[in-house]
Amino acid sequence: MRHVLDITDLNVKEVDELVATAEDIVRNPAKYAHILAGKKLATLFYEPSTRTRMSFEAAMLELGGSVISCADMSRSSAAKGETLGDTVRVVGNYVDVIAMRHPYEGAAYAAALKSPVPVINAGDGGHCHPTQTLADLLTIHREVGRFDNLTVGLCGDLKYGRTVHSLINAMLRYKNVKFVLISPDELKLPSYVLETLDKAHAKYEEIPDLEKAIVDLDVLYMTRVQKERFDDESEYNRVKDCYVLTAEKMKLAKKECIVLHPLPRVNEIAEEVDDDPRAAYFRQTLNGKLMRMALILKLVTEKDAVYRREETVSGGKCVNKKCITHFEKLAPLYKAEAENGMHKCAYCETLQKLADKK
Amino acid sequence: MRHVLDITDLNVKEVDELVATAEDIVRNPAKYAHILAGKKLATLFYEPSTRTRMSFEAAMLELGGSVISCADMSRSSAAKGETLGDTVRVVGNYVDVIAMRHPYEGAAYAAALKSPVPVINAGDGGHCHPTQTLADLLTIHREVGRFDNLTVGLCGDLKYGRTVHSLINAMLRYKNVKFVLISPDELKLPSYVLETLDKAHAKYEEIPDLEKAIVDLDVLYMTRVQKERFDDESEYNRVKDCYVLTAEKMKLAKKECIVLHPLPRVNEIAEEVDDDPRAAYFRQTLNGKLMRMALILKLVTEKDAVYRREETVSGGKCVNKKCITHFEKLAPLYKAEAENGMHKCAYCETLQKLADKK
Amino acid sequence: MRHVLDITDLNVKEVDELVATAEDIVRNPAKYAHILAGKKLATLFYEPSTRTRMSFEAAMLELGGSVISCADMSRSSAAKGETLGDTVRVVGNYVDVIAMRHPYEGAAYAAALKSPVPVINAGDGGHCHPTQTLADLLTIHREVGRFDNLTVGLCGDLKYGRTVHSLINAMLRYKNVKFVLISPDELKLPSYVLETLDKAHAKYEEIPDLEKAIVDLDVLYMTRVQKERFDDESEYNRVKDCYVLTAEKMKLAKKECIVLHPLPRVNEIAEEVDDDPRAAYFRQTLNGKLMRMALILKLVTEKDAVYRREETVSGGKCVNKKCITHFEKLAPLYKAEAENGMHKCAYCETLQKLADKK
Repeated sequence: MRHVLDITDLNVKEVDELVATAEDIVRNPAKYAHILAGKKLATLFYEPSTRTRMSFEAAMLELGGSVISCADMSRSSAAKGETLGDTVRVVGNYVDVIAMRHPYEGAAYAAALKSPVPVINAGDGGHCHPTQTLADLLTIHREVGRFDNLTVGLCGDLKYGRTVHSLINAMLRYKNVKFVLISPDELKLPSYVLETLDKAHAKYEEIPDLEKAIVDLDVLYMTRVQKERFDDESEYNRVKDCYVLTAEKMKLAKKECIVLHPLPRVNEIAEEVDDDPRAAYFRQTLNGKLMRMALILKLVTEKDAVYRREETVSGGKCVNKKCITHFEKLAPLYKAEAENGMHKCAYCETLQKLADKK
Repeated sequence: MRHVLDITDLNVKEVDELVATAEDIVRNPAKYAHILAGKKLATLFYEPSTRTRMSFEAAMLELGGSVISCADMSRSSAAKGETLGDTVRVVGNYVDVIAMRHPYEGAAYAAALKSPVPVINAGDGGHCHPTQTLADLLTIHREVGRFDNLTVGLCGDLKYGRTVHSLINAMLRYKNVKFVLISPDELKLPSYVLETLDKAHAKYEEIPDLEKAIVDLDVLYMTRVQKERFDDESEYNRVKDCYVLTAEKMKLAKKECIVLHPLPRVNEIAEEVDDDPRAAYFRQTLNGKLMRMALILKLVTEKDAVYRREETVSGGKCVNKKCITHFEKLAPLYKAEAENGMHKCAYCETLQKLADKK
Repeated sequence: MRHVLDITDLNVKEVDELVATAEDIVRNPAKYAHILAGKKLATLFYEPSTRTRMSFEAAMLELGGSVISCADMSRSSAAKGETLGDTVRVVGNYVDVIAMRHPYEGAAYAAALKSPVPVINAGDGGHCHPTQTLADLLTIHREVGRFDNLTVGLCGDLKYGRTVHSLINAMLRYKNVKFVLISPDELKLPSYVLETLDKAHAKYEEIPDLEKAIVDLDVLYMTRVQKERFDDESEYNRVKDCYVLTAEKMKLAKKECIVLHPLPRVNEIAEEVDDDPRAAYFRQTLNGKLMRMALILKLVTEKDAVYRREETVSGGKCVNKKCITHFEKLAPLYKAEAENGMHKCAYCETLQKLADKK
């Protein structure tokens, strides 16, 4: 039994297998239509995310399983002071797999520590959302046909966008992938992600201008530039149009360049782009369902899987105020392996010094 | 692929076929128990309406299909600024048919413009609720045995009651139907509905007194007279008892006169009437489920159906403040065919002059 | 057709049959996996209780049936003034059995008066929650192997804890059961429950100290001592630790003594106890699902069952302000059989004098 909390919980071989399964589901849906008959998925959502919940539920139903839907866990026992650990131990008596969404970072880790059934992280605050990345990957594979030798543009909010960081982590494991980082100064990729790129010897380039960058891309991943991220509204007004994708800008892109977006979009992609065959973002939601099918199937049927939990050490309170360890009274845990003398919180993965804690 | 937004999206022949299917379901439920196996319905409810949602979900389950339930869409992506068009394009990747409820008028039309799967309007503000009318029609057919040669009394709030307007639109397509309009002055049938009656050469009579009117009726359709509809509370107090159906008043009705009500009722039908065999309003909810089964079945299996969308012209902002075009930034559209120089909004069907717009 | 509103709606023979069915489900799950195919359960929850709702839904799904989930009935037609009686008459057209949760006492009785399908009380305020007691009973039977000759400790809030009162009512029907009542003075078992024990000639003992009491127990039923129950906070602080179960206290218990808790727990059982094999509270939630399976199966398939409704008399308003008769305008009803000149409200079972009413 194992959990998927982060995209890196799946190695390259496993991602490739999930992609192969998803593509086989497209070809042979009947083969999968009853494969999980009698199995149950619980969607435990501590904050609303109808799209993600529907995608998981559709996935389980298309595998022949059934669903217990909890769209509003924030009003449940949690409100009575129950821990996530107790909740999943109970829910584990009702279902075979849990998809969980939570506003606090590391919540899925806290649940996985105690759960008797596989936990899939369906988003824990700004931390991880691995099945979104699986959707992105399948879309690239189905539309472009490969993961290697690609120029991938990431546009918009590269600072806070967890889907961007997760996609980078997934893609840098393939050969000869070049990242083009397109964002205003305020929303540049954080240095710790740049370091990951460096460590992996990945090629990348920072270009503030979408019109210049778009020319060479095989994949353009759009995200939203939110006004609230800017201290200075005039600065926001100056740059915002640059990061809106229009039919005009699409004329500069390659004939095969596909456009992705995690959705919902507000106005960062003009509606006129929707009819462009290169606009892949609605197909991307279909691919999300297919990858969730492949993942649920893997986790529910993989009897002998062992969840590799990294070695941890104890320490003082986590510095990240949005870490689940501040929401519930959980013993802080840190990954044993240090990076430059810093340790990652085992829950939310925030890097910090442990010395002056305890 | 087609949508059902309004009762008139179904012609008389189609209504008759739905009634026949529903009556066949009653006789041969086993024939339908697995007919939509593997198909999925999404109930997208942007305002709560548990009864309607349950009826749709029961209908889909009794056809062997499954359900993705969204009882609280108002807390979803819509809150993040996503348009209805984007939402249904995504949801269309998860399910085979959508039943949608929304507080704004014309919302179902906005969704249908973009949806890749059939949309059933489960109520869009005060505008339309066609499956309620289908429930009314099946009840009349099962209880009285015909749609022609009927005297139909409509009692209570005829001004705002959308179920009343919709039932009139459906019934005036049959032969020799006479409408008896029973309401206080404040809540009389609007002139544009009276004009529809005139145009169809339908017989009707306005009678303020239920006790007088009830004597001749084959069907009595009750609705609620709400205090809030009156400017003058004393006027409300003077008339309210006249529009409450009691066992006493039922003594005046014909032996075969059936009583309908869209439910929920508050006190406009005394509880003592419930035991009268002519009280058909609880059976009416059963009929609602049966007609929803027939309709879902038709829409999901009718591969070659073409949705006839009326010709539209563009124009300025719709005058109806409750029109979905004010809620979302949608391009206003008007039905091309004018009536007395006025045009209907394509979304909410409010009649208005287009000249001084643009 | 019959309802289960209170644990005493099931006689000892029926409880034993449910236990036998549940234990057979454990041995032969395949035998039950499709037994209710085509049947539907509605979970009508007028207050959130995710755990209970999930347990009912899991139970129905494991019987091969399907579910219409209403986690938030408080936002539904009830808000529009519809009575519970009307609601269940409508819902009875959609499903085969109803599990209902409501904040008002006696609400399940009000529903059962009108429902055309079996109603299971999933908790009505502080009144009854019979399926929790069924979970408790199956746990005792599976873990200890018998219901007779047991010493059962009940610890914590014995005054307000409805699960405690219900378990006492269920267990005093077996032979040679001794109750050990462990609570602070403020939260002692109410006199009317003590009278029930006396009337049944049951042995019992009141001991304020858990450490002393634990030594002799076969079963320890823990509940939460809430600060809000105390007028004097210092008194709460003085006693609270006494009613927290720790590994230290478990050392004093018998090797076979099992620990139950209705969950959610907050801190009344230290987490360190979870790993003790005698800690049965998570297995108890599994047993709750199994007993709900057995009960749903019984009620849906028992065609000829007759619901025995006790004789009632009318009277004035119920003295219990949390009685459903104050929430909805229901005619007050009292059980005809008097106890010491007092009558029980037919809805909420509060004992009261009828003379000065009417």
